[in-house]
Parts: sequence; C-alpha cells; structure tokens
Amino acid sequence: MKALLNHRSIRKYKGDPIDDSLLQEILTAGTRASTTGNMQVYSIIVTRDEEVKRQLLPLHFNQQMVMQAPVVLTFCADFNRFNKWCKQRNANPGYDNFLSFFTAAIDALLAAQNVCIAAEEKGLGICYLGTTTYTADKIIEVLKLPKGVVPVTTVVMGYPDEQPELTDRLPLAGVIHHEVYHDYSEGDIDQIYQQKESLPLTKKLLEENKKETLAQIFTDNRYTLKDNVTFSKNLLKVLEQQGFMNNDRTE
Amino acid sequence: MKALLNHRSIRKYKGDPIDDSLLQEILTAGTRASTTGNMQVYSIIVTRDEEVKRQLLPLHFNQQMVMQAPVVLTFCADFNRFNKWCKQRNANPGYDNFLSFFTAAIDALLAAQNVCIAAEEKGLGICYLGTTTYTADKIIEVLKLPKGVVPVTTVVMGYPDEQPELTDRLPLAGVIHHEVYHDYSEGDIDQIYQQKESLPLTKKLLEENKKETLAQIFTDNRYTLKDNVTFSKNLLKVLEQQGFMNNDRTE
Repeated sequence: MKALLNHRSIRKYKGDPIDDSLLQEILTAGTRASTTGNMQVYSIIVTRDEEVKRQLLPLHFNQQMVMQAPVVLTFCADFNRFNKWCKQRNANPGYDNFLSFFTAAIDALLAAQNVCIAAEEKGLGICYLGTTTYTADKIIEVLKLPKGVVPVTTVVMGYPDEQPELTDRLPLAGVIHHEVYHDYSEGDIDQIYQQKESLPLTKKLLEENKKETLAQIFTDNRYTLKDNVTFSKNLLKVLEQQGFMNNDRTE
Repeated sequence: MKALLNHRSIRKYKGDPIDDSLLQEILTAGTRASTTGNMQVYSIIVTRDEEVKRQLLPLHFNQQMVMQAPVVLTFCADFNRFNKWCKQRNANPGYDNFLSFFTAAIDALLAAQNVCIAAEEKGLGICYLGTTTYTADKIIEVLKLPKGVVPVTTVVMGYPDEQPELTDRLPLAGVIHHEVYHDYSEGDIDQIYQQKESLPLTKKLLEENKKETLAQIFTDNRYTLKDNVTFSKNLLKVLEQQGFMNNDRTE
C-alpha cells in the first residue's frame, strides 16, 4: 500500500546497475498479474545494452532517462508464442484480429504495472514512456519484433537520483461514478479541475508557454490533434502489419 | 511484494459488504498509478446496486460472481471529462482518435491493477472479467456511458469464500527476451509449454472436453475465431460510436 501511495515517476537515475537476481524477482512478480485465460499473451524485452538503448533513444523523443536508467523494459502484446504453440499442437489459432490484440495489450499492461510496483517496493524508481505507441513501427524494427507482437508501453527502471514531490491528482469524486455514469455539469468540471489549475506549477507553465489556460497547453503544445492523428494512423498501420486486423476471416 | 506473489483470482465471495472508507482507500491507491501527462483520462464506475448488477450479469456471460461480489468496478477509457474541461477553457481538444482511445485505455488499466493490488493487500479478493470488451456496446447502455467513454475491463471485488491454489505460469525465460526479441524454435515452444501441458488440471480438461491437445481447448472451445471476429467488429464499432475513430480530422 505504501509503495502504491508513494509512487513518483523518476526521470533522473544513478549509474548503479540492477542486480540480476533482483531484476528476476521483479519480473517474476510481473508474471503473477492476472492474464486472460492464463494465456500470458505478452512478452517483456529487457534492454540494457548501450547500443540498443541508443537506437531506442530517438523513438522515445530523446528522453535521456532511456540512456541513464540501467534497464529499459518494453512490454509487448504477444500472440506469436501462443500461435506457434497452437500450430505445433494441431490447433488452429484465431488470434489475428483486433479483439486479440486488445486482449494481449491488457495482459501486457497489467504485468507492467505489477513490475513497476515490485520495483518501487525494492527501492527502485520507474517511469512509463508513452512514446511507445507513437513510434511502435520503429521500435518493432529495433527490437526485431515478429508478426503477432506489438509494443504497448515502455518502462525505464533504476536507482533514483531525484526525489520529486508527489504529483497532484483530481479529487477522487471526479473520477468515480456510483452505479452508473453521471455526466459532468459545467460546475462539476470547474470544481474537479480547480485545484490543478491553482497549483504554482500551473502558473509557471502558463507563463513559460504564454497560454491563457492549462487546457490549452495540452491541446496546443503537449498532445495536439495533428500529432494524435499521425500517431493514430501509424498505430493502426502497425496493427495491420503485425497481423491483428483480419477482422473478417471466417476460417 | 507478498500481495503480488500471492495473487489468485477469486470466483466465490462471502455476502459481507465492503466498508465505504475501505473502498475509498483502495480507489485512492488506484488513482496514484501513472497516467499519461497526468491527464487521468479514465473513470471507474462502482456498481453495488442489485438491479444494476442484474443488468450487467448477462453481459458478463452470467458469471455468478457479478451478483455475489458486493462491488463491481467497470474501468473506462474516458476523454469525455477532459474534453469538457478543454472546451470550457477555450482549448480545442484533438482526442477523438484511435491513439487517444489507446492512451486512455492504458490509464484505465494501470489504475485497475493498482486497485486490485490494494484490495488484495487489504484481504479482499478480486477477479478480472474479460467479457467487458466483448459486450462493451451493451455495457455502455446499462452504465449510461456518454461519447468519449469506453469500458475496457471489469473487476469484481469482495471477501473471498474460497482459497484456490496458485495457478501455473510459463517459465520466466519463456516470456522475457534480452536486448531484442529472439523468436521461438519448435524446441523452445515444447519446453515453454511442457509444464502447463503436464499438469493434472490439463489432463482433466482434455478428458472433459474430449480434445487431443490443450491448445485445441483454447482454439476450439474457449477463444474461437468466430467469437473473436464477432467481438472485434463489435469493439471497433464501439470505438467509432463513442467518437474515437476520427483519424483523418485536420482541424
């Protein structure tokens, strides 16, 4: 519980490597996460080699923690292994469709979160890299991912070299609904975002970015329509290339 | 770490309700999970009402734990709240595309896993319901989810009324790759699945289902091509209906 409540994303790491047996223990905790039908349709790529990390670096928009953290973990939706098993066992796999991709992505993400919590309990720091889905096509090349495998998130891991403050969260009532969804009124939205908008960090961001509202920093600078459209097309193409968009096959 | 390593899916629950303050604490731990750009683009629907649960029951293929467990949590990718905030703040949101859906789904799933771990640490049991993505269209109706909101997974939660054994997992080396992906040889596949195939449970399943191999139970009975294709089409239609497939918008 303490590890859960004290999570901070760590973006600066010490040079110290992670002991093999510790990493093994953390990854084992990852594999205890729930998985659809106990199929475990995911794989984890453990990258420690400087040269491979250097190739991943621009695909994560040159965030230096990719080089600095001793371990980079790429979590992949993976039906390749399961499909091979089916074929070797005289079974005809039907997992080349969108539902199967999403099922495998869920498996990969629950395992990722278990890995992160285990790491934090052991005194390590982590940071998720959302860039994984933006540049999945190129990550597939660098990590030599075969058909049936799609990277869904990346986690860097190592000993923290910073102690950031706990980041803010929306009030719990802002993200919870009882029984059914109760849509938000204008007043609800004002109330839910009030605290975030009045943070000193927000004031600093508005000045730096010369923006009128915090929301504009998201829409105009950080997560733009143009980028989202480009990354959407790219990710859908990746799903097709990796064999997850045969949604009309009948036999 | 103990909670992580001791996870079992619980499918039988005692009638005891979950105390409000305990549930609050567990959900708060959920909201400490990492989220893209700290946007928290997810919502959690807490269902305890008998009548709403009765409507959800067939959508989860009549698994009785939906009625038995005191709490049913539906985790949703949710850009509705964020979009409303943007519009109220003179910002133009570009989050009606596939990338944005997937970003929000990641947020929802990491929060879900945190909630499950917190619950298990507190002595509660949980089970994920994969049926959520199969019947998302109907869950949207029951839970009154507006545009911008898609259910991605469901968790039932309560005090366990069973103590199942730890389920098997593939050997760690079977799901980990070092530096880059090393594709599996026939021998690798045999080795990775050997333990699972030789379990007493597997022998029982083969006899019950009159099948030659365990893989056939997955392909022919549990996760068939026909179902996967139906559910894939359904889920993609849901993404379109809920406003996440505008992947060509330029302004």
